[in-house]
Amino acid sequence: MSILDELRTELGAGVLTDTALLEAARADRSGFIADDAPLAVVRAASVQQVQAVMRLATAHRVPVTPRGAGTGLAGGAVSSAGAIVLDLSAMDEIIEIRPDDELAVVQPGVINEQLDIAARAFGLWFAPDPASKAISSIGGNIATGAGGLLCAKYGVTREAVLALAVVLADGRLIRTGHRTVKGVTGYDLTALLTGSEGTLGVIVEATVRLRPLPAGQPVTIGAAFPDVESAAAAASAITAARIRPAVMELIDASALAAILVHLGTEAVRGTPLEPVTDAAPAGAFLLVQCDDVAGPVEAKAALEVIIAAGGTGQLAADVDAGERMLAIRRAFHPAMAANGEVLIEDVSVPRSRMAEMFREIDAISTRFGVPIPTVAHAGDGNLHPNFVYDGGDVPQAVWAAADELFRAALRFGGTLTGEHGVGLLKRRWLADELGDDVYALQREIKRVFDPLGILNPGKVFAE
Amino acid sequence: MSILDELRTELGAGVLTDTALLEAARADRSGFIADDAPLAVVRAASVQQVQAVMRLATAHRVPVTPRGAGTGLAGGAVSSAGAIVLDLSAMDEIIEIRPDDELAVVQPGVINEQLDIAARAFGLWFAPDPASKAISSIGGNIATGAGGLLCAKYGVTREAVLALAVVLADGRLIRTGHRTVKGVTGYDLTALLTGSEGTLGVIVEATVRLRPLPAGQPVTIGAAFPDVESAAAAASAITAARIRPAVMELIDASALAAILVHLGTEAVRGTPLEPVTDAAPAGAFLLVQCDDVAGPVEAKAALEVIIAAGGTGQLAADVDAGERMLAIRRAFHPAMAANGEVLIEDVSVPRSRMAEMFREIDAISTRFGVPIPTVAHAGDGNLHPNFVYDGGDVPQAVWAAADELFRAALRFGGTLTGEHGVGLLKRRWLADELGDDVYALQREIKRVFDPLGILNPGKVFAE
Repeated sequence: MSILDELRTELGAGVLTDTALLEAARADRSGFIADDAPLAVVRAASVQQVQAVMRLATAHRVPVTPRGAGTGLAGGAVSSAGAIVLDLSAMDEIIEIRPDDELAVVQPGVINEQLDIAARAFGLWFAPDPASKAISSIGGNIATGAGGLLCAKYGVTREAVLALAVVLADGRLIRTGHRTVKGVTGYDLTALLTGSEGTLGVIVEATVRLRPLPAGQPVTIGAAFPDVESAAAAASAITAARIRPAVMELIDASALAAILVHLGTEAVRGTPLEPVTDAAPAGAFLLVQCDDVAGPVEAKAALEVIIAAGGTGQLAADVDAGERMLAIRRAFHPAMAANGEVLIEDVSVPRSRMAEMFREIDAISTRFGVPIPTVAHAGDGNLHPNFVYDGGDVPQAVWAAADELFRAALRFGGTLTGEHGVGLLKRRWLADELGDDVYALQREIKRVFDPLGILNPGKVFAE
Repeated sequence: MSILDELRTELGAGVLTDTALLEAARADRSGFIADDAPLAVVRAASVQQVQAVMRLATAHRVPVTPRGAGTGLAGGAVSSAGAIVLDLSAMDEIIEIRPDDELAVVQPGVINEQLDIAARAFGLWFAPDPASKAISSIGGNIATGAGGLLCAKYGVTREAVLALAVVLADGRLIRTGHRTVKGVTGYDLTALLTGSEGTLGVIVEATVRLRPLPAGQPVTIGAAFPDVESAAAAASAITAARIRPAVMELIDASALAAILVHLGTEAVRGTPLEPVTDAAPAGAFLLVQCDDVAGPVEAKAALEVIIAAGGTGQLAADVDAGERMLAIRRAFHPAMAANGEVLIEDVSVPRSRMAEMFREIDAISTRFGVPIPTVAHAGDGNLHPNFVYDGGDVPQAVWAAADELFRAALRFGGTLTGEHGVGLLKRRWLADELGDDVYALQREIKRVFDPLGILNPGKVFAE
């Protein structure tokens, strides 16, 4: 029997081969389109079905690409030729919320924001908040190690994952981690699997940490700066002043110009970006949001740092005014997408090196004649330089500029991906960052989990 | 040439074979004494020397046990027959403190408290605070995944480790992790190595996260309860009320009785433990400390929960009065040690199950006729049941009681070690907790890093 027939015996209507679905599985949100469509998209409805798929894949030596909501930005979940795309989006149940233990147990297809909303009913929330939180699923967030806006204060995704249930390449189900705050029994496989991008196993359940909701309402500051370097320096100075904003977002001049074209200048009424005199109303916009009991005090202190650093800052009068300022940041991705295909980069540098990294991006932009509008999670030194192009394959000049950008980040003691993962797009730089010995160790760990090499081959590591 | 001669060529006076030193390396603070002394204690002064030791150990197939300050509680750093004990305590330099990036780079032999003191000069601190912080070293803390009193609010050790430099079994030096807040390039080997108890590599440098010092002075509450279950329930209720104390310590009746014998009743003057009418002045003592901006508000809220739960609680009048209450908790280990040899257990359970776990400990104590004075880090569900015995080997009744205790913790969804590690003492229960498949995976990961099995053999895994 062919593997398709066997899959149909086990999963029935979950085995999908419609051309449109197979085509859709060639892409994610990275802009990358795989050369080939998969053999099938298999939509699993249970852990047992995932196990059946992996058992058959092992028996037939067929590669499997696990896929959640398909919102990845590095090509980690796009299909390979002849592969099964194992779609976990239908496994979307919140199995349990334990307010007293401040944890939730979820299936991998649960949309990030849905868990957050469910937790809020108990005075809790789910801190990992990738910009995609309304559309991305927790299984994918964990597999990617996806970050977001709040990591500097509320931790990265790895810190929010307490335990996992994972189906191995051969179909066995394992459980890692604990429902407890502490636990050091053996090696930390939960952390090893977090960010492993579907190459070590298929996450079928996650026990995640919830946090008490911050008290009161957040206080928001918007600040215009004459140039991005002074804004980056101000952000670093806020951190260095021991202020811990929940959100600190930086938007450079060309990103700001695109946003204003997209939103219209009306959107900045009442913010320090007024008056808008031309297409680039300020050299940079810094958005700071302080929360919890210390929020109002911290916001005032942050505003003082901003003014001392040459910014024109302003406390939002109320929560709505704060939301209007945040909407400027949120419009960045739609504004980019309106202009063409977008390659979103994701370098991260030590916070003290942010201003230098912005200077470097500016120099690279000039050198390659490529505009690189950039936003940054400035509280944690994570920059998203964007490349907009006309469609089709990413142009060579863009990759050349990105290459220089990665090397600069590494030179500053940073990394080529803060939160998007390696996927397909960054695998060629992986060994540069890791070094040959660590690269070889990681390949061997991959082999321990996946001796036949059927789990998401070609992702993370170039074969 | 013998390995000793070769070691002397490479390390000169760092190769120690005095009988007293070899004898000392048979023990740590676990109470366990290894059957055999090591071949030598080798005190490394540099990364290069560590590399030389591992190269020679590989060439001669000689086992190596890395050792820091020797304060482990699970036997992870005691010698094996014919092994080299690789002593890293002399590598005790704080290489760098970067206040703007809120990180420090340290050699492994730096004493935990020394780094904390150094960080405080910059308005920062090092959060991981095992009870041994005045005497334990950071390399050992990381290798063990050591916890402490502050984990519920300030995170476990893994969350404080950003990057590591590690010498592999064959002497190669690798670097894992980043100086950045975020970074998801490849598998998280930093987390894998944290808590690996010297079985995967030798930590020779760590980049650790520092935190801004909390504002103001902490506010302390002491509370007496009629029994330990109501105290445990009160602690769980404080967490469930979304209060996040920095410290929440629970002391049961028999632990309290031993402390009062040790300190004298004068020590509890002015606390809710007065008046002391007999050897067991209260059924349990709960100590809560709230810090930072929200501290005073949180402390008042915690006191209300305590009173509602049947406790007699009291806010400390000032910092000194708070310190006097904390001194009661700090006297626990000396009070135990004054009565004989001590086996300190380390189970961790979900916070909602603490009261049940205390009930179980009480039942086990009765069943085996063994007193089990217990303290708990009640904010995170980590209990330390203590067994006091006369010396020599741990009595069989104690192991039998400990066995039941571990099984109860696992039944409640907990773990057999929250922060002390597996070492020698708990390896026989490891597979019970992990399950056979995860156990086998962990063994294979061990083989990737240490194909000859020379790194701390017999620890974590029973050979």
